[in-house]
Amino acid sequence: MTVNFAVLGAGRIGKVHARAIAGNPDARIVAVTDALPAAAEALSASTGAEIRSIEAIAKSADVDAVAICTPTDTHADLIELFARAGKAIFCEKPVDLSLARVQACLKVVDETKAPLMLGFNRRFDPDFRAVKAAVDRGDIGTVEMVTIVSRDPAPPPVEYIGRSGGIFRDMTIHDFDMARWLLGEEPDTVLAAASVLVDPAIGTAGDFDSVNVILRTASGRQAVITNTRRAAYGYDQRIEVLGSQGAVSADNTHQANIQIATATGYGRPPLLDFFMTRYVAAYANEIAAFIAALRDKTPMPVSGHDGLLALALAEAALKSVAEGRAVTVAEVTG
Amino acid sequence: MTVNFAVLGAGRIGKVHARAIAGNPDARIVAVTDALPAAAEALSASTGAEIRSIEAIAKSADVDAVAICTPTDTHADLIELFARAGKAIFCEKPVDLSLARVQACLKVVDETKAPLMLGFNRRFDPDFRAVKAAVDRGDIGTVEMVTIVSRDPAPPPVEYIGRSGGIFRDMTIHDFDMARWLLGEEPDTVLAAASVLVDPAIGTAGDFDSVNVILRTASGRQAVITNTRRAAYGYDQRIEVLGSQGAVSADNTHQANIQIATATGYGRPPLLDFFMTRYVAAYANEIAAFIAALRDKTPMPVSGHDGLLALALAEAALKSVAEGRAVTVAEVTG
Amino acid sequence: MTVNFAVLGAGRIGKVHARAIAGNPDARIVAVTDALPAAAEALSASTGAEIRSIEAIAKSADVDAVAICTPTDTHADLIELFARAGKAIFCEKPVDLSLARVQACLKVVDETKAPLMLGFNRRFDPDFRAVKAAVDRGDIGTVEMVTIVSRDPAPPPVEYIGRSGGIFRDMTIHDFDMARWLLGEEPDTVLAAASVLVDPAIGTAGDFDSVNVILRTASGRQAVITNTRRAAYGYDQRIEVLGSQGAVSADNTHQANIQIATATGYGRPPLLDFFMTRYVAAYANEIAAFIAALRDKTPMPVSGHDGLLALALAEAALKSVAEGRAVTVAEVTG
Amino acid sequence: MTVNFAVLGAGRIGKVHARAIAGNPDARIVAVTDALPAAAEALSASTGAEIRSIEAIAKSADVDAVAICTPTDTHADLIELFARAGKAIFCEKPVDLSLARVQACLKVVDETKAPLMLGFNRRFDPDFRAVKAAVDRGDIGTVEMVTIVSRDPAPPPVEYIGRSGGIFRDMTIHDFDMARWLLGEEPDTVLAAASVLVDPAIGTAGDFDSVNVILRTASGRQAVITNTRRAAYGYDQRIEVLGSQGAVSADNTHQANIQIATATGYGRPPLLDFFMTRYVAAYANEIAAFIAALRDKTPMPVSGHDGLLALALAEAALKSVAEGRAVTVAEVTG
Repeated sequence: MTVNFAVLGAGRIGKVHARAIAGNPDARIVAVTDALPAAAEALSASTGAEIRSIEAIAKSADVDAVAICTPTDTHADLIELFARAGKAIFCEKPVDLSLARVQACLKVVDETKAPLMLGFNRRFDPDFRAVKAAVDRGDIGTVEMVTIVSRDPAPPPVEYIGRSGGIFRDMTIHDFDMARWLLGEEPDTVLAAASVLVDPAIGTAGDFDSVNVILRTASGRQAVITNTRRAAYGYDQRIEVLGSQGAVSADNTHQANIQIATATGYGRPPLLDFFMTRYVAAYANEIAAFIAALRDKTPMPVSGHDGLLALALAEAALKSVAEGRAVTVAEVTG
Repeated sequence: MTVNFAVLGAGRIGKVHARAIAGNPDARIVAVTDALPAAAEALSASTGAEIRSIEAIAKSADVDAVAICTPTDTHADLIELFARAGKAIFCEKPVDLSLARVQACLKVVDETKAPLMLGFNRRFDPDFRAVKAAVDRGDIGTVEMVTIVSRDPAPPPVEYIGRSGGIFRDMTIHDFDMARWLLGEEPDTVLAAASVLVDPAIGTAGDFDSVNVILRTASGRQAVITNTRRAAYGYDQRIEVLGSQGAVSADNTHQANIQIATATGYGRPPLLDFFMTRYVAAYANEIAAFIAALRDKTPMPVSGHDGLLALALAEAALKSVAEGRAVTVAEVTG
Repeated sequence: MTVNFAVLGAGRIGKVHARAIAGNPDARIVAVTDALPAAAEALSASTGAEIRSIEAIAKSADVDAVAICTPTDTHADLIELFARAGKAIFCEKPVDLSLARVQACLKVVDETKAPLMLGFNRRFDPDFRAVKAAVDRGDIGTVEMVTIVSRDPAPPPVEYIGRSGGIFRDMTIHDFDMARWLLGEEPDTVLAAASVLVDPAIGTAGDFDSVNVILRTASGRQAVITNTRRAAYGYDQRIEVLGSQGAVSADNTHQANIQIATATGYGRPPLLDFFMTRYVAAYANEIAAFIAALRDKTPMPVSGHDGLLALALAEAALKSVAEGRAVTVAEVTG
Repeated sequence: MTVNFAVLGAGRIGKVHARAIAGNPDARIVAVTDALPAAAEALSASTGAEIRSIEAIAKSADVDAVAICTPTDTHADLIELFARAGKAIFCEKPVDLSLARVQACLKVVDETKAPLMLGFNRRFDPDFRAVKAAVDRGDIGTVEMVTIVSRDPAPPPVEYIGRSGGIFRDMTIHDFDMARWLLGEEPDTVLAAASVLVDPAIGTAGDFDSVNVILRTASGRQAVITNTRRAAYGYDQRIEVLGSQGAVSADNTHQANIQIATATGYGRPPLLDFFMTRYVAAYANEIAAFIAALRDKTPMPVSGHDGLLALALAEAALKSVAEGRAVTVAEVTG
């Protein structure tokens, strides 16, 4: 079986997913679309796929699945449209920045029973998968603590900050998902602290650039997440899980695996400094997992509900900072 | 100049300090004491020093300094006694488990102007000092975040838990001191989460065994501390400081610096699993620093006030757990 | 400009190179061939290229370049054929196992001025290139010593040993090339020791499985190569270059970049254990370099002469083992 | 039982051994001697031991053992003197630079049955012992290859080179001993290459500064040793043993176990750069092993014969370089 895709959005991430689909032996791209004609044409040229309108794609009998790579504020509408059109949907995270809108959208997905996978790419990174596999094999006993350090090489443009939903919804959201995935229990309480240390303009825009978050589950398992918008040495992405019988961790990826020793000491290159190079394998694996789930008719490896719960943690973190107290997830999901 | 010491307490830690003093070219031990005659005799035999009563030591003209290595609940009284007797005082941490008692004791120390150094040994670990030196040299720019992972190999006996003052006052206290030392600003707010995951008996005793703490300073710098009472792989002691231009970290110390590669993978030995082997150099360096400060008439590298502030953070952490909210240091110091 | 390729040989390595060519934006495959019709058909199906005979390819006006991926004993004849046919040639190493045959073949290449690149893939490994770049930048001063450890995970089938030309021509040949590349001077003397330690059948076949080689240049620079046909922990590929001001080294690649710590110690996964996974990036880079050299009309990054000199070192090593003495390269090249 | 020592030679290494003896609970120093009165007096003052002449020490009933730390050219005579005087002997390596003189000296030792331990300190380094323990436990199966990298931070003064016996007898000798210790079989053939790359004055003095050596045992096991007199990054001391089921290695020791990450990459401090700091534990352990062997009446852990065989390998290496061929140990031991 070959899955026929339409790729919606021909920007940076759309091209990444298009390449992954084109390289997958069980899939091909039949249609592309983008609000900018030039972008659509470029992607059409490199993939050989037709340019069609969104409406035409929704009606195309030869399209089995859509990959939604458009701006965030279009995601929920497109998910609803294609769910009703009977297509399988791969959507870049997030569904929406508003919890209420996500809940409404997922209601449509549930009603239509449309297969929906949300693009939390980190779950598909080979090293993080190896961590998860070790946890699942019981190598470290019962999970107790998850520690995540996640730092961007440099902050995004301040104009992006304004429409990002803020650091918790934009950046920590990935770590919330990783924490949920690794804790093996749902966090029910959130404690967070947030500062502006990197760039005062981020504060002026109403956001933070340096945060720490503690998550706690009902049985007392905890996760601690440390995020900053600037790490001079590259894109810092580390996770560790402590269990009753040990710990498993994934370390960073350097630009090359070499070492230079001189009179001043031993040096290694900085880390990969861009999420697309750091997670190049993760992006390919995630599309492969979506295709495999469609082919094998198994549940999607990341559901819309996963997106909802990560967003709820972000809301709770924001409330925790604002009110200086522990906030339960129930308080924000209503 | 040679500093003449009396060692008070001939137990495990007393022997460690006695060895460090005996090996220091600028110091010697002239008297020892212990409530247990056999312990006092053993230490007297190995050091060649006389056994004297505490009262006699306080009156001994040939004693310049005392090393207080007795049980915690005697520390404050002994500090006051020897401060009034005009002796220089090295005291194992803590001064006391009660913040009010510490405050009263330090009032006496201030009035008598007695030199007092508190034994926060980690500040004297060669690797942690190298981290501090890098920070002080400006290698990483302005400090923003401190991350401390500190895990014991195994919990202490439950009967000890009862008189330990609890995990924050007994274990995290070291990390509070490290955080203060490395942040370069006083933390003013504490957020903490605490669980019982290792042994339910610890919970029955009214304590926790797994905690995470976030500290925040007035300018927004943060420290995050993760503690557990059990790490199957040894005594886990890591610190990292992130600054505007980079990060510096100290890694763990393994039992040997070897690697065994077989069909199942690459293996390294577990960590050193006892604080006395892990911090053997720190203990020697800390006594040397005390002696050097006396000799050079410079301020003590760790003051009673440092002990007070670390304890205040512990109190605030405890209150944060109890009340589920951010607690300021001012709330607990009154 | 697009380079039109014919791929000769549709076996394991032919498929690797076909994939690299297909993925290169400046190249495409127009023809494939293989002695086994089924193999040719499979490669034709996956690439969309026509099946043609070798003779037809030599005469095809639409073929600019050939990738020779056929058995070793056909390489020299094919190189001569396609050099005379005016095609650019990428040939898997070696040109031939006989030094005299290589010399004769390269004479034809020189006469026809055909562009010929030999597939010493390791020069294109990202980590080894980073080592070379550090050397070329002068990071370690003047090169003095090169140390290469190269171990296969497991020996090849004994029947392969018989037609491999022996360990020096089959396995060490890669390290001879790396040594030449990194020393910055031609080795003129070879000292070698060889044993059978892994499998007596390898000895019965007239070969060795465990060797050490020292190369020396006229100015006294040295390289030492250690090879074995079995490393339980994976495909062990390390290089180090020592210079007057330091050293640079490339370490191995593990199956995942994770660490599991338990009561028995810290473990990392074994190494990648197959040359095709270990050198996946190298294979893609090497074809890209061939295409770029054709496009830019620059010299081939690895010439037939490089193949000849590596083979001469292998011959000298063999003679050194047989005669128990230092052998000069001049003795074998005549 | 307490072993009473006389320390012969109060220079750098004499002080190291004196400190180790003084710190050992089963030993004490009763006498010291040195050709320079000031040196003898200083050591006497710091140890509390009497100054006695060599002759007096030989006749002292209260001296059980001597530690010979005098210049190399006195070792053989002193060993013979004290062997005949019935003392146990710890002697810094080497016994002598002349193989014939060593053989004559060991004949006296054998006749007198005097306990003699030679100071090959590296066998007592904790990391190298952990390597040996792994080999002895069978963790890596049957030993096949030993790889030793040993580089000094900087060459010794050229005047020292002249009386050192040359790099093989002075520096490689340690690695020959390690190779013998780890191979588990006696090497019978030596191949060596030697260059002058660091300082032409070393060549003028008749020596080399950069060498590689291959040792081979009767069954085909091999060791490869790479030595240079200069490593800008510190005192480089690495060993690796490959066996049929894996490999075990010991890595270098850095000045501190920290890492600094900035925009230019990750940095670690250089290596310890002095043999006395690098091998501080080894020196203490080696004296303890000598004392333990005396106390337990077990064989000395390093015999005079070990010194003889390491020296024979050095002679064979020198001959291999001179004659450009493989040299057997039998050729030099006669």
